[in-house]
Amino acid sequence: MTRSAIYAGSFDPITHGHLDILHRALNLFDYVHVGVIHNLSKTPLFSMAERLDMIQQSVSSDRVTIASFNGLLVDYARKKNIFNLIRGLRAVSDFEYEWQMALINRDQDNRIDTVFLMTDRSYSYLSSSIVRQLATLQGDIHSYVPPYVAEKLKDRIHGHH
Amino acid sequence: MTRSAIYAGSFDPITHGHLDILHRALNLFDYVHVGVIHNLSKTPLFSMAERLDMIQQSVSSDRVTIASFNGLLVDYARKKNIFNLIRGLRAVSDFEYEWQMALINRDQDNRIDTVFLMTDRSYSYLSSSIVRQLATLQGDIHSYVPPYVAEKLKDRIHGHH
Amino acid sequence: MTRSAIYAGSFDPITHGHLDILHRALNLFDYVHVGVIHNLSKTPLFSMAERLDMIQQSVSSDRVTIASFNGLLVDYARKKNIFNLIRGLRAVSDFEYEWQMALINRDQDNRIDTVFLMTDRSYSYLSSSIVRQLATLQGDIHSYVPPYVAEKLKDRIHGHH
Amino acid sequence: MTRSAIYAGSFDPITHGHLDILHRALNLFDYVHVGVIHNLSKTPLFSMAERLDMIQQSVSSDRVTIASFNGLLVDYARKKNIFNLIRGLRAVSDFEYEWQMALINRDQDNRIDTVFLMTDRSYSYLSSSIVRQLATLQGDIHSYVPPYVAEKLKDRIHGHH
Amino acid sequence: MTRSAIYAGSFDPITHGHLDILHRALNLFDYVHVGVIHNLSKTPLFSMAERLDMIQQSVSSDRVTIASFNGLLVDYARKKNIFNLIRGLRAVSDFEYEWQMALINRDQDNRIDTVFLMTDRSYSYLSSSIVRQLATLQGDIHSYVPPYVAEKLKDRIHGHH
Amino acid sequence: MTRSAIYAGSFDPITHGHLDILHRALNLFDYVHVGVIHNLSKTPLFSMAERLDMIQQSVSSDRVTIASFNGLLVDYARKKNIFNLIRGLRAVSDFEYEWQMALINRDQDNRIDTVFLMTDRSYSYLSSSIVRQLATLQGDIHSYVPPYVAEKLKDRIHGHH
Repeated sequence: MTRSAIYAGSFDPITHGHLDILHRALNLFDYVHVGVIHNLSKTPLFSMAERLDMIQQSVSSDRVTIASFNGLLVDYARKKNIFNLIRGLRAVSDFEYEWQMALINRDQDNRIDTVFLMTDRSYSYLSSSIVRQLATLQGDIHSYVPPYVAEKLKDRIHGHH
Repeated sequence: MTRSAIYAGSFDPITHGHLDILHRALNLFDYVHVGVIHNLSKTPLFSMAERLDMIQQSVSSDRVTIASFNGLLVDYARKKNIFNLIRGLRAVSDFEYEWQMALINRDQDNRIDTVFLMTDRSYSYLSSSIVRQLATLQGDIHSYVPPYVAEKLKDRIHGHH
Repeated sequence: MTRSAIYAGSFDPITHGHLDILHRALNLFDYVHVGVIHNLSKTPLFSMAERLDMIQQSVSSDRVTIASFNGLLVDYARKKNIFNLIRGLRAVSDFEYEWQMALINRDQDNRIDTVFLMTDRSYSYLSSSIVRQLATLQGDIHSYVPPYVAEKLKDRIHGHH
Repeated sequence: MTRSAIYAGSFDPITHGHLDILHRALNLFDYVHVGVIHNLSKTPLFSMAERLDMIQQSVSSDRVTIASFNGLLVDYARKKNIFNLIRGLRAVSDFEYEWQMALINRDQDNRIDTVFLMTDRSYSYLSSSIVRQLATLQGDIHSYVPPYVAEKLKDRIHGHH
Repeated sequence: MTRSAIYAGSFDPITHGHLDILHRALNLFDYVHVGVIHNLSKTPLFSMAERLDMIQQSVSSDRVTIASFNGLLVDYARKKNIFNLIRGLRAVSDFEYEWQMALINRDQDNRIDTVFLMTDRSYSYLSSSIVRQLATLQGDIHSYVPPYVAEKLKDRIHGHH
Repeated sequence: MTRSAIYAGSFDPITHGHLDILHRALNLFDYVHVGVIHNLSKTPLFSMAERLDMIQQSVSSDRVTIASFNGLLVDYARKKNIFNLIRGLRAVSDFEYEWQMALINRDQDNRIDTVFLMTDRSYSYLSSSIVRQLATLQGDIHSYVPPYVAEKLKDRIHGHH
């Protein structure tokens, strides 16, 4: 029996924390679909094309597919016919939000189930937003993102000459 | 002895979670005054008139009064001469914010006391903001808000034809 | 309409935190019944008679009744025909336990509702167990319990001469 | 590829919350092994034989195996050659303990990974210890455990006649 | 041996909570440097010059220096050659954010260490943002900020005549 | 000016987490006094003499003194004339308990202040009780305690032959 899961997020940009969760998900599922959300309510640092590209460059497994989506995650899951959602847990405050979303998603379609995985100790408390903030202030980000992403972040924030 | 309480919020829009708390409050108090806050710092989805109308349509008890207010809740409470505030608890993270506000309110006027009630299990983690988000993404909201509110949400978000 | 509530606990011994909650409850309810639990699973420091006596000595309102009970709180509430339960909130960790108990109580009988009140800032984080511990180590407890209770604690822990 | 997981616990007794998690785990894994812990530090209400029997009576899938174990869970996982552990999440306070155990387990053997699943809303905050406590006080437990378990609990606590 | 620490923040405006932490820090360190952050992502209520002035007016010790800084706190710490950071703890939700920042800061430079101090009970849950909000709504702020700051807040929000 | 602090605990046994906090405290204070509590309410795994010996073997700095004490920590602090207490923070749930104790200690004597330090990421969630539990179940403890302590734990739990 083939098992698949969706790992959804805005990945603005993808971090080692995300990649760690993805790697763990690939131990559980035959295929993992990374779904990148068009988030209408906030302007991302990177365009959708850039975010998809950075994920592509950071993932090598042929058991991973990557695409963007609009609208409700549950509708996307139905369209894809994949009912397992992957979420990474990093902190207690995360947990409440994740719980809320998991309950709401189940209310929307009770076939949906959320599988929570725990990041490595070294990536706990890591988020894309911290990485963006550090990059803006010229902090050291090399241990949080792959080299390709680090390069793109520097380009975006400080420009090329 | 007649007992009254204020149930304040932005109710943008009112949900079954709010109505559940209101219903429980009516078991404790003779009169409950629903106070709808003019929140200057964020633009609501619904105008004050629409929010008041949706509450009116959702509440039938003649022991409930509804009005909007400006400024500090504590000042409004003093003006109304009602010193019990009703708050619904839905989640641990809620709780800290509620605690902060309750302490600040007591500092402002020590006659003020906050009565915390717990929503039904099925409304824990429900909020107006989740409902707005779901409606925007065309999710199913019928179990979270009364039919009249669901209708208004659809109209607001997708327009009439 | 007359409104009553039960304030249940082991009160081993009663503290200023409990008295503060009781005082706030008397602003909301016509009568408050203090129910002292026979807790079979741990040996109390004070006997039931002593605990009832210390409450009696600390409470003056004729709107308060005091009694001990065995068994399930919900059964006692049914017997008393009082369906509002009073609980004091002191800390975030409290809150989760209180929530669990409130949900379980509602499952047992859906007429049961729990009203959470917040202690004064100066009694947050105060508990009977901290008071017992301090008394055992000869710490200063006079700001946590009424003088009569302080006296009894000293007698119990260090004996009379 | 065949995937297996261990669902370990003391199951004293098994509840609908456990069964809900087990059911969700069976959507993710081909086989789930229920491992019942000999907990040396506290005396269980039910003997190991009784706990195993109650699980057996409550589970019908032939993709579930059940056994008891001694010692460290990680050692048992190695012996069984199964490196996925299933845990149910019910509350924020749970989460921290679960996180600690998951980190410690990974430290012991980095092949070990913990998959967290979320119980149904109606079983959040449910635990074997609450069930034992309710049964002791003659509370209503029929919505928390299967009928066979409810029967055994009544027998254990109040004896046969 | 001389010991110094940095107490960084946006201090928009400084509150009695900040001053309480500063006072406690002066018991631990010979010198405390108050570093006021140019926060690019949100518009402060008070200009940098005003914030520095309000701190100056509120602090009398000659063991305190005050300056503004741009960029990463860790870089500023390196430039100042001060590796102890002071943070005040006020609430559980604070704590997770503080923890994240402390870990990130240590990742940036492992000489950096964060010393957490606890505010007085009466300032727990107090923040500059609550003070700004209260001032906007004409609430009573005199117990949260020094008189000079209260004056400036009233001027800023309601203008002079 | 010479600054000292007390680092109190039961240290049953001392772990790398404790040693990490001690090391950080030595960057802040000229002298750190390790105070080992005679805890009357639970039987330790190691005798006071053994616990003191294991700390002695694990600490080399001549700026550290070690002793046992009875009674209230605040009384011991007064006797030693040291008013700074060191506490390590490892988890959110820790934090609430630590906060309670810090407030109570300040109530007892307002000269007392608590300085919270954060352990290294690799020791978060580590505790003596987890170490004892792992040792009992023959888990691998070498990364949590110094070799001398690991040896003593093995001896204690499995005996010599």
